[in-house]
Amino acid sequence: MTDSPLSRKLATFVALSDTELAVLDSLHKRRRIFVAGRDLVLQGQTEQAAYILCSGWACSNKLLQDGQRQIVDFQIPGDFLGLRSVLLHISDHSIEPVTDIEVTEILASDLLDAFAHTPRLATAVLWAASRDEAMVVEHLVDVGRRNAAERMAHFLLELGARLSLVGMGEKASFACPLTQYHLADALGLSAVHINRVLRQLREAGMVTFRDGRVTFDNYEKACAFTQFDPTYLDQHGPLLK
Amino acid sequence: MTDSPLSRKLATFVALSDTELAVLDSLHKRRRIFVAGRDLVLQGQTEQAAYILCSGWACSNKLLQDGQRQIVDFQIPGDFLGLRSVLLHISDHSIEPVTDIEVTEILASDLLDAFAHTPRLATAVLWAASRDEAMVVEHLVDVGRRNAAERMAHFLLELGARLSLVGMGEKASFACPLTQYHLADALGLSAVHINRVLRQLREAGMVTFRDGRVTFDNYEKACAFTQFDPTYLDQHGPLLK
Repeated sequence: MTDSPLSRKLATFVALSDTELAVLDSLHKRRRIFVAGRDLVLQGQTEQAAYILCSGWACSNKLLQDGQRQIVDFQIPGDFLGLRSVLLHISDHSIEPVTDIEVTEILASDLLDAFAHTPRLATAVLWAASRDEAMVVEHLVDVGRRNAAERMAHFLLELGARLSLVGMGEKASFACPLTQYHLADALGLSAVHINRVLRQLREAGMVTFRDGRVTFDNYEKACAFTQFDPTYLDQHGPLLK
Repeated sequence: MTDSPLSRKLATFVALSDTELAVLDSLHKRRRIFVAGRDLVLQGQTEQAAYILCSGWACSNKLLQDGQRQIVDFQIPGDFLGLRSVLLHISDHSIEPVTDIEVTEILASDLLDAFAHTPRLATAVLWAASRDEAMVVEHLVDVGRRNAAERMAHFLLELGARLSLVGMGEKASFACPLTQYHLADALGLSAVHINRVLRQLREAGMVTFRDGRVTFDNYEKACAFTQFDPTYLDQHGPLLK
């Protein structure tokens, strides 16, 4: 159990001691399953728990009153779901499982206790939250400043880097359960536009997304095309020894 | 000194003890001044410090190779500058003073030491980072899903709520040094468009931005217009007693 996707991810930032790993383990007590498409956190909900995603994919999104939806980010194993909501007393977003998912539920009190007793763990979680924020910043740049093809390429390159860190595929080839509707709501494009952009990237010899698998036909070309600089994902090795 | 904008902000989340306030004070040792328009953190820079903003306004932004710029957020007194960069080993963005600013420099080692000795402070900083992330998420929704007038109104309402928390004006009336160019780069609009949108909001009786001051002529109307729900700013009072 000690080798969870979360411990693997946090180990990128901090070399966790046995005590710290044990505390992290103890947070993995309450296992729960949620099925695809049924929200596990609702925007505006108070008093909810946070979750650690153990298997499957989820997405966080904001709903507007007129029915529009902006997907903020996708979560993969090792990611927190609703951590911000616990700290901010209220959920400012909804979380929906993209596939069936398995999570462990963490009560706010358990989390704050763990932080009080293992401050290095708190720092590691702050690192993970900073990394999540850096991804949201990139999505803001995607929507604000990159054209449709650049957005898509940047987004898929980011996914590959994240998945390879937690051992779920290679950065240039990975299984991906996202539909064109997920991509559309994340990238601010229509579903029709998504198909056109994917065809364009495929015909340019950069990346193919087919039958639930993303394969970069020319990884370097895709990186150059969208100016992908993965340093914001900070996968260089521990800052805290 | 104990009553700094940062301590006032963190007190919203956690009732800080005298020891914790003293540690926070001790982080305010190295005062530095930066003049408007000269970056204090450069995108791609490594090994830099983080700063706490004591007076003045700054903005964090991402530069693209083609010269485009996306402003991610503005920082006001009590905000961290470059906290994410310290944790992520490298700065994924630049920080530019909007006005002349006074900051205190914090070395990564001092910050990590402070966290290790006062874990509640680490949790409070995690709260502040979560709140910053919630703002970036709103900016993503602004650019991805809100029209120009809704974006502008939402942005100005957010600023008012933030400024009032640290005692720099009222939520419905505050001094604001931002130019149309700052607003354009933050909201993904042209400077000309900014002027048109501000006129539209003024003529609708919602908000006037003139001579460096934002005044909501009808605060409730502006909130309803842009569906402003300030819960993501979490200004309700301490979760941690």
